[in-house]
Amino acid sequence: MKFTVDQIATMIQGAVEGDGTQHITGFDKIEEGKSGSISFLSNPKYESYLYDTEATAVIVAADLDLKSPVKSTLIRVKEPYVAFTILLQKYQEMTAKRETGIQVTAHVAGGINVGKDLFVGHLAFIDANSSIGNYTSIYNHVSIGKNVQIGDNCIIYPGVVIYNDTVIGNNVIIHANAVIGADGFGHAPQADGTYKAIPQLGNVVIEDDVSIGANATIDRATMGSTLIRKGVKLDNLVQIAHNVEIGANTAIAAQTGISGSTKIGENCLIGGQVGIAGHISIAPKTIITGQSGVTKSIKTPGQTMGGFPATNNVDNLKRSALIRQLPELFEKINKIK
Amino acid sequence: MKFTVDQIATMIQGAVEGDGTQHITGFDKIEEGKSGSISFLSNPKYESYLYDTEATAVIVAADLDLKSPVKSTLIRVKEPYVAFTILLQKYQEMTAKRETGIQVTAHVAGGINVGKDLFVGHLAFIDANSSIGNYTSIYNHVSIGKNVQIGDNCIIYPGVVIYNDTVIGNNVIIHANAVIGADGFGHAPQADGTYKAIPQLGNVVIEDDVSIGANATIDRATMGSTLIRKGVKLDNLVQIAHNVEIGANTAIAAQTGISGSTKIGENCLIGGQVGIAGHISIAPKTIITGQSGVTKSIKTPGQTMGGFPATNNVDNLKRSALIRQLPELFEKINKIK
Amino acid sequence: MKFTVDQIATMIQGAVEGDGTQHITGFDKIEEGKSGSISFLSNPKYESYLYDTEATAVIVAADLDLKSPVKSTLIRVKEPYVAFTILLQKYQEMTAKRETGIQVTAHVAGGINVGKDLFVGHLAFIDANSSIGNYTSIYNHVSIGKNVQIGDNCIIYPGVVIYNDTVIGNNVIIHANAVIGADGFGHAPQADGTYKAIPQLGNVVIEDDVSIGANATIDRATMGSTLIRKGVKLDNLVQIAHNVEIGANTAIAAQTGISGSTKIGENCLIGGQVGIAGHISIAPKTIITGQSGVTKSIKTPGQTMGGFPATNNVDNLKRSALIRQLPELFEKINKIK
Repeated sequence: MKFTVDQIATMIQGAVEGDGTQHITGFDKIEEGKSGSISFLSNPKYESYLYDTEATAVIVAADLDLKSPVKSTLIRVKEPYVAFTILLQKYQEMTAKRETGIQVTAHVAGGINVGKDLFVGHLAFIDANSSIGNYTSIYNHVSIGKNVQIGDNCIIYPGVVIYNDTVIGNNVIIHANAVIGADGFGHAPQADGTYKAIPQLGNVVIEDDVSIGANATIDRATMGSTLIRKGVKLDNLVQIAHNVEIGANTAIAAQTGISGSTKIGENCLIGGQVGIAGHISIAPKTIITGQSGVTKSIKTPGQTMGGFPATNNVDNLKRSALIRQLPELFEKINKIK
Repeated sequence: MKFTVDQIATMIQGAVEGDGTQHITGFDKIEEGKSGSISFLSNPKYESYLYDTEATAVIVAADLDLKSPVKSTLIRVKEPYVAFTILLQKYQEMTAKRETGIQVTAHVAGGINVGKDLFVGHLAFIDANSSIGNYTSIYNHVSIGKNVQIGDNCIIYPGVVIYNDTVIGNNVIIHANAVIGADGFGHAPQADGTYKAIPQLGNVVIEDDVSIGANATIDRATMGSTLIRKGVKLDNLVQIAHNVEIGANTAIAAQTGISGSTKIGENCLIGGQVGIAGHISIAPKTIITGQSGVTKSIKTPGQTMGGFPATNNVDNLKRSALIRQLPELFEKINKIK
Repeated sequence: MKFTVDQIATMIQGAVEGDGTQHITGFDKIEEGKSGSISFLSNPKYESYLYDTEATAVIVAADLDLKSPVKSTLIRVKEPYVAFTILLQKYQEMTAKRETGIQVTAHVAGGINVGKDLFVGHLAFIDANSSIGNYTSIYNHVSIGKNVQIGDNCIIYPGVVIYNDTVIGNNVIIHANAVIGADGFGHAPQADGTYKAIPQLGNVVIEDDVSIGANATIDRATMGSTLIRKGVKLDNLVQIAHNVEIGANTAIAAQTGISGSTKIGENCLIGGQVGIAGHISIAPKTIITGQSGVTKSIKTPGQTMGGFPATNNVDNLKRSALIRQLPELFEKINKIK
């Protein structure tokens, strides 16, 4: 990357304050700003870094009042973080060179349907009767089973395993070593204490614009489909059990697990290491704080829930506060006695 | 699949009520029943779906009293869920076509011992001195180390890594990207604050009829063996540390972790996201509720345990209830004062 | 292995008590000691096993007073566990035969920089502009992206995925199917409820002597680097989010997750299934007990912290004890009323 501060200001519709002819060659966090880099200040908490940073340019809010002189050239915009993100995206688009073609060491079964400008990396494997859309990248060591459909503009990172019958929409990103479509955990107990496996004959359906983290697991349905709706974002090591449905634009942080047949509404925000019981439903726009355990359906949309068993987080925090006051309470009681 | 309702009734020894000549071409959950499909009703909670379903046939209990007319043909059996599962299994057996042979892009080291009708998928790797039994399927991208023994009728899904010296029985299923036999987490602290790795010279032994979930990890023993007994079922992302022993027919749900040298009895049921401390033992038939933390040995068999630190779940639920009553308690105390 | 007890005593500078001419052919835990094996007794809790073991030799403390006669030959040393570990290490060094060379089925892109005595396993893949140091082993099915640097004496186990731009020092061990450098979980919410991905343009830097468990995930930084300092030990299924820094010699047990931009000090000990919030910092030498949830920065070094939200563990255990006394407290209050 090599742009002047003025050119960058034009890209993000900002006003330059200082020397706009300087060259920018990289990005830095404001506290790590180096000569030649551009940074941003969004959270007022970090304002003190602005007066010390070595960054050549800093994107700041249009209405920021400077408390001290700054060395950097400023670009003033309405929303510094959004402007910076746009800049990162433009940079990524300019520098990313998509490879195309099927590498010689990949193995693609006969009779599969491939789109234009497909990329299949070295040592990848695509089994029979699958179809892959246009501009999709299948990286090395990916395993794609039989009867799998993958849409356009998808990126499947190395080592991902996609079992038979999975259906994936457009613009889906799956990070390395995630597993899509393994058997649900269904074992029928027998009289002698052993288990008989319940055949898992359904599949996984992933709609458009979904992103799935590294080493995440999404199990196929017993019957029907485990459903990941449009725009869902799953972090690393998330577990989605059989017959679960995750509503559109719901984001789930790392190491959270959703048990079988549970339905999560749209636009929920679920923290990390949360556990959600099976066969329940969570209303849209629910926020669940990290490490919570949800044992019952949540029916009112838009609540923040926390704790174990999860309740409205206001109650949960109140209870936590009271628990911290228990030592004084016990003392008081002893005095009263 | 194409059978008449009468043919299906014969398979599961049921009595037909309605038109038995109709054709069935698939399975559905009762609430999603479509024309041509067969479903079942087991849990009385879902009985209302019976009167609305579009399913051509529904398997119901022999003694079910109908509260309204139904459109579907009924097949009455003693245990509808069991009958339905049998049907799914028969279907799976009829439709599953096992592949055999070693694919050309697989790499199998010389001198390994292979059974009859083995399948080794594309780009799989089997190292020296290993032996694989009859009718076992090793899918694509599987890595099998040196001196590994795998029994008959096993299915090892894509991307599974099996380290040197692992011993696996018959009818074992390991889902994608699980890792068997990595080094236990053993690091001896040194005076200067660094660690020295303690060599992990043992192995993992997995007995017959075990099933292991996607991205699960089972570490090799420091000395001796980490032992997964006959019939154990492990869900996705479960972690089994070095020198652990899991008793026969114990089932462990997703994201649970068992610390080093702990022994779990047989026929236990362990929920998801449970943590179990190291060097303890859990009595047979213990049930542990999801997200619990077990810090001490559990000596009496057959208890249900919950909470952190886990206690008998009756006490745990009582404590939870009292915690929910803390706000009133604090108010009461203030009044008394 | 075939040594006499006398020879082994010389290796670990111990004093023989009993017949030193006997031959040792393996290692066993004391409770599983067999003829021909050597074991050790370190924890006094297990002393009773000493009087029953069939082990040919047992390493014991120099000052141990025998309460009964023993069959085994004893080797007396200052620290039995340390001596035993040294023995295991010597054994491992003697028996481990490193393979070298690039296997024919591996695919290594042109123009990469490889050290001497490199090993690249079957079906591994190394992309362009990467460099690998001397004596490093890249096992089968490993995926190494572009511009990756790996130092000397590293072991990268099967199925590991290392994304573009990762930098790895010397003596680093990464266990199977771990993922290094996937995109951080950064999604900017849009007005219509959807998300826009924030480009993750940074990388992961792993310093010398680090060990990473199977199926662990370490995300690349948004800008700059996610940093794993010298001597860090991460267990299986650990999640390290973008822009995290883990201080030197910190050890983290299985299934723990560290949220974005958090800085962990050096020489910390973090238990399993711990969750640590984002954008906080943890002082050096902090100990965090298993399943805790850390929501705020910990500023005083050397504390043991526990619970959710984590506090000093003395307070946490006190609170737990009081919670267990709630039933009596409620009764007392009712009587007072």
